[in-house]
Amino acid sequence: MDATLSDGVVRAGKQAREQFYDSSGYGRPVDAGKLELAPVEAAHLLYRGDLDGVDGMGLRELLNSALLSEVDFFVYKDLRDRGFYCSPARSERVADPDGCDFVVYPRGKGPWDDAVAHRIRVVSERETVPAADLGACALAVVDEESEISYFETHRPDVTGTSRSSVPETDGDLLADRVVCWDPPAELYEAAFYGQPLDEQDAQAIQLSLVEAAYLAGTGTLHVEGDADAVIERGRAVEGDRFDRRLAVYERLREQGVAPKTGFKFGADFRTYADVESVADLGHSELLVRAFDAGHVFEPRDLALDVRLAHGVRKTMAYAFVGDEGIDWLAVERLTP
Amino acid sequence: MDATLSDGVVRAGKQAREQFYDSSGYGRPVDAGKLELAPVEAAHLLYRGDLDGVDGMGLRELLNSALLSEVDFFVYKDLRDRGFYCSPARSERVADPDGCDFVVYPRGKGPWDDAVAHRIRVVSERETVPAADLGACALAVVDEESEISYFETHRPDVTGTSRSSVPETDGDLLADRVVCWDPPAELYEAAFYGQPLDEQDAQAIQLSLVEAAYLAGTGTLHVEGDADAVIERGRAVEGDRFDRRLAVYERLREQGVAPKTGFKFGADFRTYADVESVADLGHSELLVRAFDAGHVFEPRDLALDVRLAHGVRKTMAYAFVGDEGIDWLAVERLTP
Repeated sequence: MDATLSDGVVRAGKQAREQFYDSSGYGRPVDAGKLELAPVEAAHLLYRGDLDGVDGMGLRELLNSALLSEVDFFVYKDLRDRGFYCSPARSERVADPDGCDFVVYPRGKGPWDDAVAHRIRVVSERETVPAADLGACALAVVDEESEISYFETHRPDVTGTSRSSVPETDGDLLADRVVCWDPPAELYEAAFYGQPLDEQDAQAIQLSLVEAAYLAGTGTLHVEGDADAVIERGRAVEGDRFDRRLAVYERLREQGVAPKTGFKFGADFRTYADVESVADLGHSELLVRAFDAGHVFEPRDLALDVRLAHGVRKTMAYAFVGDEGIDWLAVERLTP
Repeated sequence: MDATLSDGVVRAGKQAREQFYDSSGYGRPVDAGKLELAPVEAAHLLYRGDLDGVDGMGLRELLNSALLSEVDFFVYKDLRDRGFYCSPARSERVADPDGCDFVVYPRGKGPWDDAVAHRIRVVSERETVPAADLGACALAVVDEESEISYFETHRPDVTGTSRSSVPETDGDLLADRVVCWDPPAELYEAAFYGQPLDEQDAQAIQLSLVEAAYLAGTGTLHVEGDADAVIERGRAVEGDRFDRRLAVYERLREQGVAPKTGFKFGADFRTYADVESVADLGHSELLVRAFDAGHVFEPRDLALDVRLAHGVRKTMAYAFVGDEGIDWLAVERLTP
């Protein structure tokens, strides 16, 4: 069977409509019983051998033309291989494409149904992705060798029941942390601030600069020079990153979540939503990275973060710090 | 027992020499049977209760003074806890400190022996580390909560026996890769260039832009516009990073190592040193990231890379591309 091409749209006749749309969800029925196909759909039909040509073009010619991105083709083919029907979203076929490239229907459903399983945004490994574009779609990243990694993204509600208020205490500001030599037991044991200076003797508690800056800011920690001195020490080494981390730390504590360093996981924080006591500490749920609002992701960095988080049974979350507050984004591996 | 402080050096008498140096490797014997201690050694003796004071200062006062970095103290204490004797390296005690902070002796050995187990460089999580400082030492990173991660660094010999030369072939340059529609079987099967366009039908092989640029550069791949067109396409999206990756790719192929994309691991490449055929492919050994010469590491990024590489049983390797060629650095987890 052959199809024709005009103005970037492939058109085929009544038989194509029955064979491709009615039975397999390709294309969009138009007037006079005809079928319109997006170039990526026509390419897949050429690849399957169901179409013989599009105005004389085969798959090779279509891939060489400007009509079709091969990255889109690989993702469309992969979704079809996984048993899904899907439609190109940047067309009049899909209401509210929401920055996505393909709408994927639940298995067994198709374009004639209302249900949507995934909204997929397609990028090449080599392109960047603005964080603002994520949160309501899944990302399909096509790597250099055309392997596809899928990432689900959403806007999480980061709240918990961990305790943040404790009795006041004094601390010494050292080069890179604060030591409380005689703190109330609640500081560490109940609210999970700091770490014992010595595992064997949990009397003295050392606080990280970000913990100390928060506690000094709330009036809980008394330290020479107050919160300003701690913040200055933090900025001296980290610059703006310290402010960004402190903003996220404050927000997490305000929301009842206890953040601890995420260093071993390459993140800013790991978080505990429901600390009752350190003696009975659960598993930390999130790995958190703090970025500026307007952050743009390299897909490779996303892949690294998400793979590592998955390997330690945590969810990767990003906090974007801007003038209007903090936005959250969670990213997880997806196997469609 | 008490000690005195003068010019940043702690001094104690004959009894200290017997008790601390002869039996436990602290300090350096000096004239008249006396002992000199570095502040970090004195701090550890104060912490253990073996010293009562240094000119009236206890551990708290010493940590509050400018004599001692608490990060050094944490690492020294950790190494002692692990059963090692160690000496501060930035003193006349150690010949050729090699940019390291502590020399660690093998278990059962001490400063009176010649053997060295580790040369340790200490950094806080929040400091950066120039790549040029690594390669002959282990890095001890003290995180915000004073947990210590150790990383062994060395300069690896990255060579292999994988085949790089194959018969000539033609390819079509698409937006983000090259497709060879009728390549020689050796291209993929023997030399592991590219991936089949379709798993079921391995006829057509797609090459990544970096593979295509290399093969076009060696005269193996014929493509419209030659290597320049491929490189231009690569730079259009990636900028300088493409040139850096291509330089590393070329070097690896010249050295008999087959690089493939490291995307799923958040790296530039994963590498196979001894490919005989794709049908009998072994495990890839290295994850490689390409950086410019003069690169400065964030310890957190190192921790992320090395943890992920360890989790997939590979070694993390960094390639630094400069005018003089390419330098290599391998980093692995170390448990002293």
